[in-house]
Amino acid sequence: MTTPLRLGVAGLGTVGSGVIGILQRHGDLLAARAGRPIEITAVCARDRARDRAVRLEGYEWEESPAALAGRDDVDVLLELIGGVDGPAKAAVETAISSGRDVVTANKAMLAHHGQILAETAEAAGVALRFEAAVAGGIPVVKTLTEGLAGNRVIRVMGVMNGTCNYILTRMQGAGLTYEEAFSEADGLGYLEADPNLDVGGIDAGHKLALLSAIAFGARVDFDGVEVEGISRITIEDIRQSADMGFRIKLLGVARITERGLEQRMSPCLVPADSPLGQLEDGTNMVVLEGDSVGQIVLRGAGAGSGPTASAVVSDIVDLARGVRVPTFGRPANSLKKIPRSKSASTARYYVRMQLQDRPGALAKVAGVLGDASVSIDRMRQYRHDTATAPVIFVTHRTNQEDLETALSGIETTDVIEGKPVAIRIEEV
Amino acid sequence: MTTPLRLGVAGLGTVGSGVIGILQRHGDLLAARAGRPIEITAVCARDRARDRAVRLEGYEWEESPAALAGRDDVDVLLELIGGVDGPAKAAVETAISSGRDVVTANKAMLAHHGQILAETAEAAGVALRFEAAVAGGIPVVKTLTEGLAGNRVIRVMGVMNGTCNYILTRMQGAGLTYEEAFSEADGLGYLEADPNLDVGGIDAGHKLALLSAIAFGARVDFDGVEVEGISRITIEDIRQSADMGFRIKLLGVARITERGLEQRMSPCLVPADSPLGQLEDGTNMVVLEGDSVGQIVLRGAGAGSGPTASAVVSDIVDLARGVRVPTFGRPANSLKKIPRSKSASTARYYVRMQLQDRPGALAKVAGVLGDASVSIDRMRQYRHDTATAPVIFVTHRTNQEDLETALSGIETTDVIEGKPVAIRIEEV
Repeated sequence: MTTPLRLGVAGLGTVGSGVIGILQRHGDLLAARAGRPIEITAVCARDRARDRAVRLEGYEWEESPAALAGRDDVDVLLELIGGVDGPAKAAVETAISSGRDVVTANKAMLAHHGQILAETAEAAGVALRFEAAVAGGIPVVKTLTEGLAGNRVIRVMGVMNGTCNYILTRMQGAGLTYEEAFSEADGLGYLEADPNLDVGGIDAGHKLALLSAIAFGARVDFDGVEVEGISRITIEDIRQSADMGFRIKLLGVARITERGLEQRMSPCLVPADSPLGQLEDGTNMVVLEGDSVGQIVLRGAGAGSGPTASAVVSDIVDLARGVRVPTFGRPANSLKKIPRSKSASTARYYVRMQLQDRPGALAKVAGVLGDASVSIDRMRQYRHDTATAPVIFVTHRTNQEDLETALSGIETTDVIEGKPVAIRIEEV
Repeated sequence: MTTPLRLGVAGLGTVGSGVIGILQRHGDLLAARAGRPIEITAVCARDRARDRAVRLEGYEWEESPAALAGRDDVDVLLELIGGVDGPAKAAVETAISSGRDVVTANKAMLAHHGQILAETAEAAGVALRFEAAVAGGIPVVKTLTEGLAGNRVIRVMGVMNGTCNYILTRMQGAGLTYEEAFSEADGLGYLEADPNLDVGGIDAGHKLALLSAIAFGARVDFDGVEVEGISRITIEDIRQSADMGFRIKLLGVARITERGLEQRMSPCLVPADSPLGQLEDGTNMVVLEGDSVGQIVLRGAGAGSGPTASAVVSDIVDLARGVRVPTFGRPANSLKKIPRSKSASTARYYVRMQLQDRPGALAKVAGVLGDASVSIDRMRQYRHDTATAPVIFVTHRTNQEDLETALSGIETTDVIEGKPVAIRIEEV
């Protein structure tokens, strides 16, 4: 096979420029690996006049992504525009209906429309690939879809938003408040135009929904992901959980229990000396657990031009080599609708509250916990110069309902100030 | 494609039984993922009478691996026998010449004969795959061959022998001597029949040679790997390198410099707080560095029935899906003979010696180091009740020739007892 594979590149931002850069720099290397040349036929972007980091001479310019997707001299559309709907989705739909393969980095589009797009692509006999959509340069989609294909997957976990991990790491390491760390990340250009996509856990939740589909053969169900961001995390929680031997991470967890598919993207405590606990700054980490392979940990850059472009190019090389694997590892129309199960699995919890400094206060709180069947593993009361003392409990394994009963019970006692804060401890 | 993929399983030890177990347990799951059923036609092993962990009813029994490989009703030979030559290689050669695909877990055979076997397989149009041969359950062959296909690879590093890492971790954590930790590992059944394959670094060296070929497009050159085992590592080195902030690991490193291909499997110091430094017990870790992706770290079980079988089955599912990628990521006959370059790259070194406790002794040693252009980053002299004091130097970056000049110079002074010990510090 020496016919070139011809690409149309829609979107010339950070990722698009990165991909073009790799293709220009490594043409011979890629051809040797793919067994055939890989060429760019045409490109398109919103603003033609803008200066870009790469040369575009020799490529045709198309006015719209959809027009690019429908060109006869394009075998593969690279959709590097972004956005849930709009031109990105229109271009992908045109490519599929015109019989072109698609490589995309668009987690938001796939989290919302991946199920139907994959079904349409498979019905049309074209590929829809998205390695770059999850955890940047880490080849986690390939690892899960192909590398662990012999396993019943037990659990998927991941720190998949580098910005959140940067903020939490700065709070931990430099003692910044959430607001200070957020401003710092903003100043460094780490935040999306809508910061809630990052700190609200939505971007990472998109990624988790895609991994869940592969891992458990489930229809993509982003609405089934319990998403909670990091904005409620205080410096006290960071400090006191560290004192108990934990780190706080925005952690995605997906698992199947007898009650259904549990998908959560939320702040969790993990042991400080675990690989997840030791993950610093903007790095991503995904932990995959299979019944035969045990635990596989993947770590790498989750964002940035080079890493994301690396993932896009790996999809392109696969297509050039003739590798065809269903988008989610099995035919999309065979993915099952698995009932949602909100936090069905039991967990230990970290619980923090401000307790009034008077006789019987602790007994009252401990009594409420006991009445709700929440049993205490460890407790610490800290020194204080105020009328209330910070008190931390680490519970034994309990279910979320019992914990919530206990928390409301504690809130209605007259011995605490404000609300108790609870954060799940994920065993890793 | 609903024609079954038919397997012949040669070797029914830990790995073979593990593979059969997965195929029996997960038949439906694998068929859904592969798009077709995967079946075992026939098996063979040295001893038919032996009790095995899996049921073998329904499979034909062949008297020899080669006979199994040549059967008309076998599409893929699973070579799970082991050994550089002998029945394993004969069976693989028969499979190739009979037009059957091959999946093997045999690193020793591939390190020695992988080049010619891959060329023969590619000429015959059959696949030769070996995910299970390197780092057990970690899909590192796939990650390097496919996941990082868009990268010029800069460096490959890995802790790929769990037994050595177990011994070093026990010396570090429990204060055991090398001999004590070795005996403990032996008692746990962690050592190969010839322990030198493990502690001599040979097994891990085989794996490194295979990764090098993929990473750098180089012909497989195990003889070009500088191999040094862990038996010279003393408890003093473990303790004093820890005191300097390091851990000692049997670390494989392969990189290209302007002088050629450098491949080493040897004890190295790595920062205690790096992912490699934190790796405990029998776990494996591979660090891949690409020009676009940066550093990708993969961690998981490097041995054992389940993890190794998981890797074998991932190769099988790929073949069932019709995925065909050259054994080393590009045609084997296009792999280049790259000149060997023994430790061409500079490094910092840890140097330990027993220095006589008399005036001018330290000055003499420091003078020799300076004369050889080896400059000192840090130095510690430890308390002692004897006539000589343990002294540790950490040098700045130096090349190996200068270091060796310095070491011989130090040895010929009259101020040290015994020989100085040097261990390379790998920047990670």
